[in-house]
Amino acid sequence: MAVYTEVSDDELRGFLTEYDLGAVLSFKGIAEGVENSNYMLQTARGTYILTLYEKRVARGDLPFFLGLMDHLAAGGFPCPTPVHGKDGTVLRELGGRPAAIVTFLSGLWPRRILPVHCKELGAAMAHMHLASASFKLKRENALSHDGWRAIYDGCRGRADTVHAGLEKVIAAELEFLDEHWPEALPTGVIHADLFPDNVFFLNETLSGVIDFYFACNDFYAYELAICLNAWCFEPDGSFNVTKARNMLQAYRGLRPFSAEELEFMPVLARGAALRFLLTRLYDLIHHPEGALVKPKDPLEYLRKLKFHQRVKGPSAYGLR
Amino acid sequence: MAVYTEVSDDELRGFLTEYDLGAVLSFKGIAEGVENSNYMLQTARGTYILTLYEKRVARGDLPFFLGLMDHLAAGGFPCPTPVHGKDGTVLRELGGRPAAIVTFLSGLWPRRILPVHCKELGAAMAHMHLASASFKLKRENALSHDGWRAIYDGCRGRADTVHAGLEKVIAAELEFLDEHWPEALPTGVIHADLFPDNVFFLNETLSGVIDFYFACNDFYAYELAICLNAWCFEPDGSFNVTKARNMLQAYRGLRPFSAEELEFMPVLARGAALRFLLTRLYDLIHHPEGALVKPKDPLEYLRKLKFHQRVKGPSAYGLR
Repeated sequence: MAVYTEVSDDELRGFLTEYDLGAVLSFKGIAEGVENSNYMLQTARGTYILTLYEKRVARGDLPFFLGLMDHLAAGGFPCPTPVHGKDGTVLRELGGRPAAIVTFLSGLWPRRILPVHCKELGAAMAHMHLASASFKLKRENALSHDGWRAIYDGCRGRADTVHAGLEKVIAAELEFLDEHWPEALPTGVIHADLFPDNVFFLNETLSGVIDFYFACNDFYAYELAICLNAWCFEPDGSFNVTKARNMLQAYRGLRPFSAEELEFMPVLARGAALRFLLTRLYDLIHHPEGALVKPKDPLEYLRKLKFHQRVKGPSAYGLR
Repeated sequence: MAVYTEVSDDELRGFLTEYDLGAVLSFKGIAEGVENSNYMLQTARGTYILTLYEKRVARGDLPFFLGLMDHLAAGGFPCPTPVHGKDGTVLRELGGRPAAIVTFLSGLWPRRILPVHCKELGAAMAHMHLASASFKLKRENALSHDGWRAIYDGCRGRADTVHAGLEKVIAAELEFLDEHWPEALPTGVIHADLFPDNVFFLNETLSGVIDFYFACNDFYAYELAICLNAWCFEPDGSFNVTKARNMLQAYRGLRPFSAEELEFMPVLARGAALRFLLTRLYDLIHHPEGALVKPKDPLEYLRKLKFHQRVKGPSAYGLR
């Protein structure tokens, strides 16, 4: 839940003179998202989301994120479309923060994942990867293989206070991944944070994907690996191979992946598990006292990592 | 900012089968309100607010609150209207909490109060007092004169840790009010929490009043006294007599108040200031470590109390 920056009436009024959205009908802070301040804005023209970018989002990355949404929306992908001001600009300033207005997407994110959601997600990912192939800007993934050791160094000394033996497990996994991480696989722009709360459904049809603020250039198959972790484990920790098969089959129906991409899936899934284990561990250890946002459990991702460590090959994910 | 109770898809779906609202289009937690969990619900029929009542609201009071909103809305007053289910019921259960759906009101609450807002507010208060006169249910005001000493007893020992000499100031004020509090003034249902964030405007016209969860039977003029404190002081602590005059004149244009009501205004304003000083002091002292809601400053109301202590008569509020 998050509204970090309050917006006064005068500031909002001044800001909206830059747009052609008609009279404001309502303006309410949304208790979702942990990185930025989000407001639901209703005007005579329709419903929008006004986002104020907080410190964790680098200002220099915003043209990439907003340009990507614009590009994907133009390619028919259901994501928020940045609203251009009268001067053509999408990014401006409000309350001392970079700010933008995007269109509002209908739909609810699924609190309980069904196999049909995974199938829809697989197809949407392929659509997104195909549509983003013609996007010209680039953004490195600071949270991919090359960045993990630095995060580890920022929290290794206290890892065992969270879970006995955790430091050693991570060190060994980093070594394994240094040796086995693929050097070259098909690469392009990925969302990189496709968790269920970023994917909306109406009934059981995917209606929208939001929150592109981790998007970057990386292996397409790494996106699939992140989603195997985020969507295909049950709350009790068991891996649901039907959900995985649904997701991967729907994806390759639109964007067939290579034998190599498939072969590397277990390694990519280990890397994706380690990435969220590390960032959650870091956030937990460096969690400020009394902060509004409750840190997520890193050990959920330790259990996922252990599952993939035991996997014999890509058939564990329901494919061959 | 507040969403305390999460609602799953299945729970929401089951809940909505009790209503005729059509398909759900979106469902988002709102970062406003500190007592309850509020969701903005868009369906094929329109936009609604779904509220889950948290512990601070007594279940037994809900028929009064919801009945009052129903009654006021029927009287043309712009407040949320409870949506009746297919069985006629407005109050049911969701996520283990009492829950209700009300209509959504357009408008923004004013972050910067202008004299015109006070004028609109005065007229709306009179409208509300006239419309609620025919409402049959009653609810005692636990936070009026009779209840203040108990709140004081719950925090007096630590009052001076908040502000040197505060315990003595409150004790003396309680004594003064015991002596001077009016015994009988025109009485009826009041909102009792008409702070700016509960009053919406479109342009400069009042479009709605929300959050009736402190409504109760008390002196009508006590409502005016609460609003003198909540609306007519500037951020620098000075009292804006133009705002006060605007509010009181607009009120008495619709519901003329008696010479006695006017005469008691300074005493009522002192009582209203003490009430919020006490509850804010209590909340600050009993604030749980790491709680999501930041406690409000009690000393703001100490300064308001001191202003009214120095007032010579109702002419200080711009009226005679």
